[in-house]
Amino acid sequence: MEKKIITISREFGSGGRTIGHEVANQLGIPFYDKELVEHIALESGFAPKFIEEHGEHAPGKSLFSYAFAHQGISGIASGLTTADFLWNIQCSVILQLAEQGPCVIVGRNADYILKDRKDCLHAFIHADLDFRADRIVRLYGESEKSPEARLQEKDKRRRVNYQHYTGRSWGQAQNYDICLNSSSLGIDRCAQILVDLVKNSK
Amino acid sequence: MEKKIITISREFGSGGRTIGHEVANQLGIPFYDKELVEHIALESGFAPKFIEEHGEHAPGKSLFSYAFAHQGISGIASGLTTADFLWNIQCSVILQLAEQGPCVIVGRNADYILKDRKDCLHAFIHADLDFRADRIVRLYGESEKSPEARLQEKDKRRRVNYQHYTGRSWGQAQNYDICLNSSSLGIDRCAQILVDLVKNSK
Repeated sequence: MEKKIITISREFGSGGRTIGHEVANQLGIPFYDKELVEHIALESGFAPKFIEEHGEHAPGKSLFSYAFAHQGISGIASGLTTADFLWNIQCSVILQLAEQGPCVIVGRNADYILKDRKDCLHAFIHADLDFRADRIVRLYGESEKSPEARLQEKDKRRRVNYQHYTGRSWGQAQNYDICLNSSSLGIDRCAQILVDLVKNSK
Repeated sequence: MEKKIITISREFGSGGRTIGHEVANQLGIPFYDKELVEHIALESGFAPKFIEEHGEHAPGKSLFSYAFAHQGISGIASGLTTADFLWNIQCSVILQLAEQGPCVIVGRNADYILKDRKDCLHAFIHADLDFRADRIVRLYGESEKSPEARLQEKDKRRRVNYQHYTGRSWGQAQNYDICLNSSSLGIDRCAQILVDLVKNSK
């Protein structure tokens, strides 16, 4: 079946975003990453920065206290935590975007949210620790924490969030159509494999 | 770096063996699956049927009783269980085969055994349950158990064996260079992706 929607889940620093961007460029279709945050902000009333920080992270205590600051939002009135409310909006936005036509969606558990559509290609991008550590320092600069600690912290948050909302194991091959190691195969090659798969599905 | 050795781990019924065979054919290199069993039989003195049944399965009680029937084998004299002895031989045979030159090796935890070689491409092939159930009935016929029960039993054995000897999680994307869903991508396409990756690594 023709693959129209490409979802890309990725380890932090693996180049998943870059690969997704390249795939969208080559196929001439919309690319949703930061753009997705703006859509969710519009739908939810949350600040983009808040969504960016919490949309893929495990629901933690800080989110419960945040919930009380949003008494006016309908989700809270119905007893949802802010994290669950944000998850519902995220699902709704991703389902709507997929309805609008071909696109590439990075992160935000889109593989799970769109699991019942047959026209999706679900990809997971991972890479060796050294490759990722080097990449995040080049892209995002140094910080107080070691690159390895930053990677582990961010990956752990994504893993816990994914498990919490999907009941699945993050990075388990069976959840995706294709998983690629960008450090051993190369970022350009990964993008090319995905583009070819979409083109050949037509 | 040039990829010379392709290891293929696979869910039962996913077509991993067929894909491996096609890759070896297209690249004109040796293919080790049943052939590996013969090598291990020669090195160990075990019957091929015994190796086939236990080489990828979790060490169970039946293997301990088997051990006492093999007092003459050096591994037993040194306090190893039959399962561990078989694992040691398997490692040694796979390491030797990889030294001999390019090849495709299916199963037997070869991805882990060869993890320190940089010239390997490690692939994991999986597929949806329906696809696999249909395939094993066509290939191996009906049996008393349902196809689904046969799949779950065999996959569980492989998973437990892999975890026991490698400390890793079977089918976790990060253990492989590439993971492919043969039911959504197609068996021929999976083989082609692997062949192209090897050719492009040169």
